[in-house]
Amino acid sequence: MPGTPPTRFVYLGPEGTFAEQALRSLPAAERGTRTPARSVGEALDSVRAGDADAALVPLENSIGGAVGVTLDEMAEGEPLVITREVVLSVEFVLAARPGTSLTEIHTVAAHPQASTQCRGWLRDHLPDAVVVDVLSNGAAAAGAGTGEYDAAICAPIGASGHRLTTLADKIADHPDAVTRFALVSRPGPPPPPTGDDLTSLAVYIAHDRVGALLSVLMELAVRGVNLTRIESRPTGEALGRYVFFLDCTGHVADVRLGEALQGLRRVCADVRFLGSYPRHRWAGTAGQRPVPAPAGLSDVDYADAAAWLTRLRTGELT
Amino acid sequence: MPGTPPTRFVYLGPEGTFAEQALRSLPAAERGTRTPARSVGEALDSVRAGDADAALVPLENSIGGAVGVTLDEMAEGEPLVITREVVLSVEFVLAARPGTSLTEIHTVAAHPQASTQCRGWLRDHLPDAVVVDVLSNGAAAAGAGTGEYDAAICAPIGASGHRLTTLADKIADHPDAVTRFALVSRPGPPPPPTGDDLTSLAVYIAHDRVGALLSVLMELAVRGVNLTRIESRPTGEALGRYVFFLDCTGHVADVRLGEALQGLRRVCADVRFLGSYPRHRWAGTAGQRPVPAPAGLSDVDYADAAAWLTRLRTGELT
Amino acid sequence: MPGTPPTRFVYLGPEGTFAEQALRSLPAAERGTRTPARSVGEALDSVRAGDADAALVPLENSIGGAVGVTLDEMAEGEPLVITREVVLSVEFVLAARPGTSLTEIHTVAAHPQASTQCRGWLRDHLPDAVVVDVLSNGAAAAGAGTGEYDAAICAPIGASGHRLTTLADKIADHPDAVTRFALVSRPGPPPPPTGDDLTSLAVYIAHDRVGALLSVLMELAVRGVNLTRIESRPTGEALGRYVFFLDCTGHVADVRLGEALQGLRRVCADVRFLGSYPRHRWAGTAGQRPVPAPAGLSDVDYADAAAWLTRLRTGELT
Amino acid sequence: MPGTPPTRFVYLGPEGTFAEQALRSLPAAERGTRTPARSVGEALDSVRAGDADAALVPLENSIGGAVGVTLDEMAEGEPLVITREVVLSVEFVLAARPGTSLTEIHTVAAHPQASTQCRGWLRDHLPDAVVVDVLSNGAAAAGAGTGEYDAAICAPIGASGHRLTTLADKIADHPDAVTRFALVSRPGPPPPPTGDDLTSLAVYIAHDRVGALLSVLMELAVRGVNLTRIESRPTGEALGRYVFFLDCTGHVADVRLGEALQGLRRVCADVRFLGSYPRHRWAGTAGQRPVPAPAGLSDVDYADAAAWLTRLRTGELT
Repeated sequence: MPGTPPTRFVYLGPEGTFAEQALRSLPAAERGTRTPARSVGEALDSVRAGDADAALVPLENSIGGAVGVTLDEMAEGEPLVITREVVLSVEFVLAARPGTSLTEIHTVAAHPQASTQCRGWLRDHLPDAVVVDVLSNGAAAAGAGTGEYDAAICAPIGASGHRLTTLADKIADHPDAVTRFALVSRPGPPPPPTGDDLTSLAVYIAHDRVGALLSVLMELAVRGVNLTRIESRPTGEALGRYVFFLDCTGHVADVRLGEALQGLRRVCADVRFLGSYPRHRWAGTAGQRPVPAPAGLSDVDYADAAAWLTRLRTGELT
Repeated sequence: MPGTPPTRFVYLGPEGTFAEQALRSLPAAERGTRTPARSVGEALDSVRAGDADAALVPLENSIGGAVGVTLDEMAEGEPLVITREVVLSVEFVLAARPGTSLTEIHTVAAHPQASTQCRGWLRDHLPDAVVVDVLSNGAAAAGAGTGEYDAAICAPIGASGHRLTTLADKIADHPDAVTRFALVSRPGPPPPPTGDDLTSLAVYIAHDRVGALLSVLMELAVRGVNLTRIESRPTGEALGRYVFFLDCTGHVADVRLGEALQGLRRVCADVRFLGSYPRHRWAGTAGQRPVPAPAGLSDVDYADAAAWLTRLRTGELT
Repeated sequence: MPGTPPTRFVYLGPEGTFAEQALRSLPAAERGTRTPARSVGEALDSVRAGDADAALVPLENSIGGAVGVTLDEMAEGEPLVITREVVLSVEFVLAARPGTSLTEIHTVAAHPQASTQCRGWLRDHLPDAVVVDVLSNGAAAAGAGTGEYDAAICAPIGASGHRLTTLADKIADHPDAVTRFALVSRPGPPPPPTGDDLTSLAVYIAHDRVGALLSVLMELAVRGVNLTRIESRPTGEALGRYVFFLDCTGHVADVRLGEALQGLRRVCADVRFLGSYPRHRWAGTAGQRPVPAPAGLSDVDYADAAAWLTRLRTGELT
Repeated sequence: MPGTPPTRFVYLGPEGTFAEQALRSLPAAERGTRTPARSVGEALDSVRAGDADAALVPLENSIGGAVGVTLDEMAEGEPLVITREVVLSVEFVLAARPGTSLTEIHTVAAHPQASTQCRGWLRDHLPDAVVVDVLSNGAAAAGAGTGEYDAAICAPIGASGHRLTTLADKIADHPDAVTRFALVSRPGPPPPPTGDDLTSLAVYIAHDRVGALLSVLMELAVRGVNLTRIESRPTGEALGRYVFFLDCTGHVADVRLGEALQGLRRVCADVRFLGSYPRHRWAGTAGQRPVPAPAGLSDVDYADAAAWLTRLRTGELT
């Protein structure tokens, strides 16, 4: 982010969750202040109000469950923009106070979505334990730390934060699961393009017709812009009117994405720009290379075509 | 549903939530047994195991937060199908034990997403109350009933179930918000077409290219099939490979939807059919009529074209 | 045409054809010199060589039969551009030397395509006359003028030019048939936009795939550019590789057509610009209004979207 | 062609043209009767009237100039169907009476389009000869045979038919040029599919909008049907309303082409089927293999998808 870098961070709390772990992977956040928020809305509002410089909130596949809420909160109210994404491996651990053995565990605290993701492991290793629902992974770790429960399903950061011992790690049924977080700030110049960027949009369509969505996709396709995510959400007033959240390859500063954005602006009821930011490369994408621009759609091709058009307009045909 | 109607119902619990309220709007469920489940996964698995005949789970805009979970659970494991949808107005109430006045309320129990949706009302009417996060709307009502908290934000059914008085109703900031639930059963013949049906699908695409999604939409568009919802979800193993959840207008027994389904089957890596069922008409859709088939795409048009093709193939041109 | 207006005109001869009649509808041509050419290729080459300033040649539905030839000759060799179109009602007459009555006519000279278009009339009124093929409508009139044939099917200008009497007019079976001519010049600044213009293109596609043609049409469709004509032509070397001749609504100076042209330049193997020129409004289009830009695609909409993009790029979101 | 094979053939005359040469490449025609017609319309009408069994007429790149006429004549009147295509190399020769040397040639008879195609050769080898326009290649050969002209540009069959000597062969500027002819009959069962067939259609579209044409192409593209030719023609009454002539890969008996045809029937104002017939493989296509059905679009894929749909409809999900 150009200008003064953020120093005051807020994140979806409580402490000891994957969101805190994701935030602390950013050097600036490690150096700055980190305040948990009770909800995504509260986190974003504290940025809007100027009480924080940036908020880290879950975007996708969140075991905290708040994806839809994040999208809705970004689409309404004062505009905010994503300046970074952080993709984190969701490595659940079973943690307990030091000295506890697996056979001594009769109660396990867990967020309902966390216990859902570890159903297979629990069935195989703790078939008789009672799973107690709590409000977050952090609350589970805290409850195990105070002795309220024998153990907790939580994030590694939750175990270490409450001085728990890890009895088993990577206990989720899908060992490769990840959660995607966004760092969100007040509007400003976007981070410079890196050649491997994403752009997030909220696109409003007047009707729920497939033809309207086809028009949106055609605006992208003719400029060689790929979608990595699409999600329709009801607009709040009633089901049946929709906003589409799109993640596209490319940066607002790229010629072809710029042309595609203008096209969306013209054909859609409304478009809200939610930020251009570098794609996070992580372990699961180690072997993947950024997809180059399709033939004819690089910035060089755009410049060539623009020069050709100028010659046509002045009568200097080749 | 043909055959023996379901009599044993399970729903996303606990008791006193909107899911129970939605379930009880079905006469068969009012007559049958109704068992709360601790999670969407548990509810669906009890149907898969034959312990219940049908499960009521949230699909969209859920204040219980489980939308993504429902989709994921439907897309994996033994196939299940949706046989009904229920759309419910989300009318949050503030409830307390009889005799409590607004000025006496210092603590309010609420699910985090419920308090988020009522933020404006709380700021205006209870600016000094402490909001305590609990795991569900039902748990909030229960906590107010026992006196643990002074009041609860909950569903009307939660208030009555715990003998609470409603101090204020319709306190959500979006008064028209609704939640959409699905009644899910083991596979069987779909309910008969009504002329105003929806069909739900999980569609797997090999690549994250916009071209692949365009192909899917073109299969629908050329048969005049509309989308009322689209949501991409990572496939679990890793971000970057996607499954799309689609709700389409029409019934699997309709000629044009049948042709579109066959087209999807041919061009997609995989398609899972999640059911055809009548569209729920509710207050918010009172003025809306079912969208008729576009010109040239009714079943009559299909029959005419098929007869014409037969004449071409036998040489009897007109 | 900016600069020195053309004064030396060439047209597809011989004298007395519809091409001469179309040329003489232009005031500048009526004042300048008018030279018939033996073929479309000869006419265009005399412009290329600087021996003429402009050539009038048939483009479409020509009863002279040369449409394909015109397209091929425009697509190869030194570039030329269309600066005007002229649409002419094809009103065939039966003409003979003064004093001849219908019953005295035993031989009728006609270009084969002219007699084809008047088949019904000939069958009804001159069932016993022998139709003699000649090379052009002008040659038919000339032959009747010299007495070689009793009568000619020709253009009104052919009858008057050879001092013939018109025995019957509008004898074509399709009374509303028209021919479309193009006035062709060496490259130069195009005539200014009028708000109701056409642009002609030759577009080369690498493969004969419908997907390639779909790509071309999508480039036009997303910018709201309509096609009024499309014609594929083999590229000369062999059948199977194609060039498409397109007539589009709009002017090269229009923002949206400019963007569409750049898109074609990028995705096609080659694009040759064949001119932007005012659409000819004639009797048959009397009631038609120019089609306005579709919603969101006017030059004003383009300017608005460009300004919005600038704000996004600088971080001044609205 | 099933049933009685044709024995009475008519072709676009006069004798000694490429059309006669193409017709004689068919064994049945070599054995049967061959009658020249004065025009494409006359040839087709003699089939319609039962006076001939089949007509050979030019379809594409015809140096006889009649392409558009053929299309128009096929689209109107009693339906006819193409049962074969014949692709012929257009090898113009310069022919003269025996004993004539190149230096003795002062006049050359040629159809205007033939002399156009040989412009380069004439400029290089006979710069001072006068080229005299005649009505057909056959007429040119005849005129050279009678001594009216010193030489003729004509087809090999024209030279041999009028006992002329070939002074130079392959004199066209594009040595690989070909003409495509169609053998046309009254409607009947189409020839059996060969795995490498073409289907010709006349498709009427209500409006001249690119959107309407896009709809047509989408109907083809989603079934993997390729276009090998597209040509728009005004409908006769007036410019601005169009019929599109399409040549598609595949046979009316193929499942996917059948489905595409039904789709066109539903979305277009009208569709006229002009025949399914084997693609002519000739020297220029020696190295080309028939394009196989795209992934997912073979008849086997269609059968699989149809079986899957049946299972969905009966509730036997897999």
